[in-house]
Amino acid sequence: MTDNTIKLYQSPASPNSRRVRMFLAEKGVQVAVIPVDLGAKEQFSDPYRAINPRLQVPALVLEDGTSITEVPAIWRYLELTHPGTPLLGATAKEQGLIAMWERRVELDGFSAVMEAVRNTVPGLKGRALSGPHAYEQIPALAERSLERIKNFYADLNTWLGTSSFVAGEQFSVADITAFITVDFATGGAKLPIPEEHTATKRWYDRIAARPSAKA
Amino acid sequence: MTDNTIKLYQSPASPNSRRVRMFLAEKGVQVAVIPVDLGAKEQFSDPYRAINPRLQVPALVLEDGTSITEVPAIWRYLELTHPGTPLLGATAKEQGLIAMWERRVELDGFSAVMEAVRNTVPGLKGRALSGPHAYEQIPALAERSLERIKNFYADLNTWLGTSSFVAGEQFSVADITAFITVDFATGGAKLPIPEEHTATKRWYDRIAARPSAKA
Repeated sequence: MTDNTIKLYQSPASPNSRRVRMFLAEKGVQVAVIPVDLGAKEQFSDPYRAINPRLQVPALVLEDGTSITEVPAIWRYLELTHPGTPLLGATAKEQGLIAMWERRVELDGFSAVMEAVRNTVPGLKGRALSGPHAYEQIPALAERSLERIKNFYADLNTWLGTSSFVAGEQFSVADITAFITVDFATGGAKLPIPEEHTATKRWYDRIAARPSAKA
Repeated sequence: MTDNTIKLYQSPASPNSRRVRMFLAEKGVQVAVIPVDLGAKEQFSDPYRAINPRLQVPALVLEDGTSITEVPAIWRYLELTHPGTPLLGATAKEQGLIAMWERRVELDGFSAVMEAVRNTVPGLKGRALSGPHAYEQIPALAERSLERIKNFYADLNTWLGTSSFVAGEQFSVADITAFITVDFATGGAKLPIPEEHTATKRWYDRIAARPSAKA
């Protein structure tokens, strides 16, 4: 179905934007997508600052002009307005566990890759954290991020050895963040899934076969 | 009311534990509280590892033995099982906006203070990130964290100049995280609210007057 009451500001190259696109694809919901040109620094423009003062994509803008930013907040809004195919869990226990696993993946994996990229890419000098404030890159932090990604991979392979999906026996946002983390680590930090991590590889291939993986 | 179906593993000194205690106090819900002695490194023990492999407090344990960890996940479970006095918002729009503001405060404020403390306290050498993996402290990161806290304070004062509470006109989890961030910055990073930040000071005094502030 198409939801004409919302607009998604996003960038094709942004892993955080992809977390929302994949969520919408799993829900089967189409929305108006408005590209924000990160290469041209459009996220720093005054019109975009009015949408998101943290100057990040994605942002969801409602009919009344309200902006909702931050991926888990956008997911929450979309889950409540499109409750079919729950991706944040149904019962209280499922919702708690899925929120827990998704966050572990984000903190240990996704954020580590973001940190590695932001502290090494020459074009991000002085922009080591996204947002309105300037911070210099820290080489020791970039090095530590690579260690963190390796530890994340090891933990992920252990978890996936005991369950079909990251948060248990059903597909959820925890799989979305983990899948995008793997692609981001592969492309952004040159750290693909280690050869011997067979549980992660099997899981990755199953997620990659879902139509939403191309969103 | 007392909820006998759950147990909260936590530490009195842990700011993340306090985020859950303050939430429960606002809800008027009492639960069994089990102290984890961080000074004695009880969070690294095998029994606690079985409760939370990330070796952090707090953790909520359900009657069937399920552990839910990570503060926003614990909040979600408690909000759904104790829906009176919603602290995560009622409508989809409120829930989205509160999740957004709470996360901004956590990423820009709470996490910056945690980073400052973890990268400077001598007792945390080799433990610059909480969790099962050892990481060395990075002095340049500690310095950057102090800048981040100052920027957070400036942004917070701007936001609070336009609304009664962090996420708008009602008390929410965004206020819980912001209030605890201020106390943590004051005690942990020796950065109290700057004298000239009158909007933040007025808001702080109102939150400090709530009984939950002592939880």
